[in-house]
Amino acid sequence: MTMANHSADCELCSGDGGEILLRAERFRVVLVDDAQYPGFCRVIWHDHVKEMTDLPVADRSTLMAAVCKVESVVRAVMQPEKINLASLGNMTPHLHWHVIPRYPDDAHFPSPVWAESQRQPAPASLAQRQALLGALRSAISEQF
Amino acid sequence: MTMANHSADCELCSGDGGEILLRAERFRVVLVDDAQYPGFCRVIWHDHVKEMTDLPVADRSTLMAAVCKVESVVRAVMQPEKINLASLGNMTPHLHWHVIPRYPDDAHFPSPVWAESQRQPAPASLAQRQALLGALRSAISEQF
Repeated sequence: MTMANHSADCELCSGDGGEILLRAERFRVVLVDDAQYPGFCRVIWHDHVKEMTDLPVADRSTLMAAVCKVESVVRAVMQPEKINLASLGNMTPHLHWHVIPRYPDDAHFPSPVWAESQRQPAPASLAQRQALLGALRSAISEQF
Repeated sequence: MTMANHSADCELCSGDGGEILLRAERFRVVLVDDAQYPGFCRVIWHDHVKEMTDLPVADRSTLMAAVCKVESVVRAVMQPEKINLASLGNMTPHLHWHVIPRYPDDAHFPSPVWAESQRQPAPASLAQRQALLGALRSAISEQF
């Protein structure tokens, strides 16, 4: 990694950003440690790039193909009601995609996960989703 | 549009979802009427499809190329600090992408726009951004 592609004070340059599920040449897939959202993954571009349109077109395709592959695996394993995809980066302007499985009984549904909490999810629901993480880890490494 | 691609109770099947900036064969680009976020656009797939991975791969590319084209135009015209991209659809499960120009002095920065408000944006800042909407309308129709 050249210095041009690395920012000294960026947490996604200095750290993995979660539990590594897969490390590809240009990006990595991590599992986010969020007790309310088991199965929440991120696809993080290795280089310090701010926006999708700062990438060459071929790299945008590589990244979105990876995001879609993660979406497919999360849907198959976690069986969510809906997938939420987002690339925000206001606080960490290093290109990364959130892939979030959403359920009608989760903490914020139908609001975005960044909105005010709607409820405390039932511990049994969370435990059931947590129990799928082993399968999710395996499926991500098999699919890429 | 066949009935299979249309949902009777979906607001993005029955309505445009905003001021039409561009109508292409498979998708449209609309300007969102949000006084706090001048330049907030959405790219809406015409067919009633729930998730990105419900689309054939070629259609995903068509849609993301459009999202990136809108991002480019919004960056060029609106000069935001950051672009936020999101496909959520928890309330309206009809594939649509938010393309949101973000500024350090906007109502929620650096939080997502769905989070608790951080401040009341200065009227002068909003007026300055509103004044760019004519140029944004022209640039979107020229770029597609």
